Amino acid sequence: QGTRDHPPAQTALRDRLLSAVVSCFKRHGAAAIDTPVLELRETLMGKYGEDTKLIYELQDQGGELLALRYDLTVPFARYLAMNKVTNMKRYHVAKVYRRDNPATTRGRYREFYQCDFDIAGQFDPMIPDAECLKIVHEILSDLQLGDFLIKVNDRRILNGVFAVCGVPESKFIPACSTVDKLDKVPWEEVRSEMVGEKGLSPEAADRIGEYVQLHGGLDLIERLLQDPKLSQNKLAKEGLGDMKLLFEYLTLFGITGKISFDLSLARGLDYYTGVIFEAVLLQQENEHVEEPVSVGSVAGGGRYDGLVGMFDPKGRKVPCVGVSIGIERIFSILEQRLEASGKKLRTTETQVLVATPQKHLLPARLKLISELWDAGIKAEMLYKKDPKLLKQLQYCEDTGIPLAAIVGEQELADGVVKLRDVATRAEVRM
Amino acid sequence: QGTRDHPPAQTALRDRLLSAVVSCFKRHGAAAIDTPVLELRETLMGKYGEDTKLIYELQDQGGELLALRYDLTVPFARYLAMNKVTNMKRYHVAKVYRRDNPATTRGRYREFYQCDFDIAGQFDPMIPDAECLKIVHEILSDLQLGDFLIKVNDRRILNGVFAVCGVPESKFIPACSTVDKLDKVPWEEVRSEMVGEKGLSPEAADRIGEYVQLHGGLDLIERLLQDPKLSQNKLAKEGLGDMKLLFEYLTLFGITGKISFDLSLARGLDYYTGVIFEAVLLQQENEHVEEPVSVGSVAGGGRYDGLVGMFDPKGRKVPCVGVSIGIERIFSILEQRLEASGKKLRTTETQVLVATPQKHLLPARLKLISELWDAGIKAEMLYKKDPKLLKQLQYCEDTGIPLAAIVGEQELADGVVKLRDVATRAEVRM
Repeated sequence: QGTRDHPPAQTALRDRLLSAVVSCFKRHGAAAIDTPVLELRETLMGKYGEDTKLIYELQDQGGELLALRYDLTVPFARYLAMNKVTNMKRYHVAKVYRRDNPATTRGRYREFYQCDFDIAGQFDPMIPDAECLKIVHEILSDLQLGDFLIKVNDRRILNGVFAVCGVPESKFIPACSTVDKLDKVPWEEVRSEMVGEKGLSPEAADRIGEYVQLHGGLDLIERLLQDPKLSQNKLAKEGLGDMKLLFEYLTLFGITGKISFDLSLARGLDYYTGVIFEAVLLQQENEHVEEPVSVGSVAGGGRYDGLVGMFDPKGRKVPCVGVSIGIERIFSILEQRLEASGKKLRTTETQVLVATPQKHLLPARLKLISELWDAGIKAEMLYKKDPKLLKQLQYCEDTGIPLAAIVGEQELADGVVKLRDVATRAEVRM
Repeated sequence: QGTRDHPPAQTALRDRLLSAVVSCFKRHGAAAIDTPVLELRETLMGKYGEDTKLIYELQDQGGELLALRYDLTVPFARYLAMNKVTNMKRYHVAKVYRRDNPATTRGRYREFYQCDFDIAGQFDPMIPDAECLKIVHEILSDLQLGDFLIKVNDRRILNGVFAVCGVPESKFIPACSTVDKLDKVPWEEVRSEMVGEKGLSPEAADRIGEYVQLHGGLDLIERLLQDPKLSQNKLAKEGLGDMKLLFEYLTLFGITGKISFDLSLARGLDYYTGVIFEAVLLQQENEHVEEPVSVGSVAGGGRYDGLVGMFDPKGRKVPCVGVSIGIERIFSILEQRLEASGKKLRTTETQVLVATPQKHLLPARLKLISELWDAGIKAEMLYKKDPKLLKQLQYCEDTGIPLAAIVGEQELADGVVKLRDVATRAEVRM
């Protein structure tokens, strides 16, 4: 339940998509690493907030207690700490596991690919963070998924907002996860969850509401830096200062047109400590509608400066920032688009079919195809002793093989091969 | 325990190896599929003989009872049956899981990659089987692993041998798994296990010994086809007839020089029904030694005509033959060889480092690198506001980046970039 087989057509499309993402990661100088699907259970505990219950555990069959990885970020942090690596730019494309209620129609599965790019190390502020946003921008542009928006916020700004609105520190995390719902439900509902379930005062909720409904660019950052309350809060001031720097770098990258500083962005995971971001695709459903409609998140990430320290016996910190591309949702979109176009993706790369027009010529086919393989040419033949020529040519058409290399009695006698262009039926002897 | 992280240098080597294997599979016209790491427990039961105890089971957290896949063959058979596919040539490169006692020094892990190529469908005999052997031959030649030998046998011949030697049918499988040890221990030990543990009569064991110590080529096949006892056994006769055909095809492929018909080859898995094979690397340890010494199996496979039917509600059979490349052992060999050579594999593909020689030029670097990325060029920069030029050039040398694009105050004023060849120190302004 919640998993699926990928037949050849899907695998071919997925391989194309993954290779586009990986080539962007390589363009930015990342190295690949690989970690086991299995992690110690204790490694995963206390990293995912409420979602810890979604971790797949392995049966205790003796030995260590194991679980399947839930994301690629925690294994990366564990890798850095275990190997005492303090400086690394890496990517990792692999499957992760979540015992969630699958919504397979919306591209949500229990087993799915993640494509992560992360920069670990002590660097000057916001330079790696800006690169992560540039990567999201490049990938979403390359894939031509339509218009998109990258929302950016900072956990320190959010926490500063909570503080100046009179929320006690113990309620920052619950308040955060409620704010995170603002992209799906209207403020009124979020407000009532804050007051009802999360126990904030109505006044605090109202004050929060004034902030978290703001979004904009450099102008908004400047305004909040002048805000009489926020500017007094150390965390918020730091966050806003960095946000300003980030926007300067993004301006140099020429990508601020698709970036929105959005105070409602909170993101669910516990481990973020600074900048957070999330990319959504926009759909102009109707030309008369003013605001573009969001069709869901396709990338997200942020800064997690404390996670590596949790795995180091001496608590040594390695600051990290990273991005995860939501490949499954993008895959669903590309798949639907391919289907709508009526086009078929080839599932193989075969260049030539070795065919014979008469009986008793299997040895000739075997000899020729063996020569082609040895020359590095992608070649197939039918696994029949005496297939009909029509069947052989039909197979080319069905599977998109562009050429047929035909050896008949005459060709054998003349020491030649007849090469046929399957589409045009043009033939040359060679 | 028994798993490992792959740091960038290992991942780069592994990616190279996997891509060599995959390009061979594509050269033979295979399509890729992907199946979940998780399978239903019941799918895996009764397929692996004694090794069923090595299957990793997931905790019962409600819902289906799951396990991690043990190989890629059983999931492939399940895939064919579930999707009613009766005809397919596919490859699958993925990790499998075995709760074995890991011998990591010999390249044996609990999590490891398998690279499988299989041909499913009802075809004329031995044509797909011969292609599988051709693939093993191509891959082992391409990788230049040194001399190798592909041992070939047929389960029907082995069963025929057991029958004519007076072994009751109920003891075929235990006898088979004892014969399989002949590549590691001398005949005397195998014989005593047959008589002691497996309860065969000493006479039967001696008669078996006369057969299973035979190996050769077409000549041996011909001799056994004339063997007064074996030629009377239906199974053996069928197997020997097919073996003869196989050798004819392998002769046309020009690869019989590395193929040995070896009656001691048995292979452990329950599901094989016909041709079986295994490739071993040979090491001429000492020039005075006549027989080359085997350093272990690097590929194996065979025909399993009954497996798909076990997953079909109506028991419909789909004949299959396939090969699995033992990538981990090959990886260990290549890794040792790389280490011995003192060479270092690059872990990134970065073409150019964007550098500045003076302070306060971060904006210039950000603008230039952004242009390079947008033009598809693999570029990096140091994440420091004002790094020293020497540090930047040192980074190029450490990570193998061939070029540095330098923008200083003069270059900015002149509207040029200085491109420096890191190795030769030659510079051009452009």
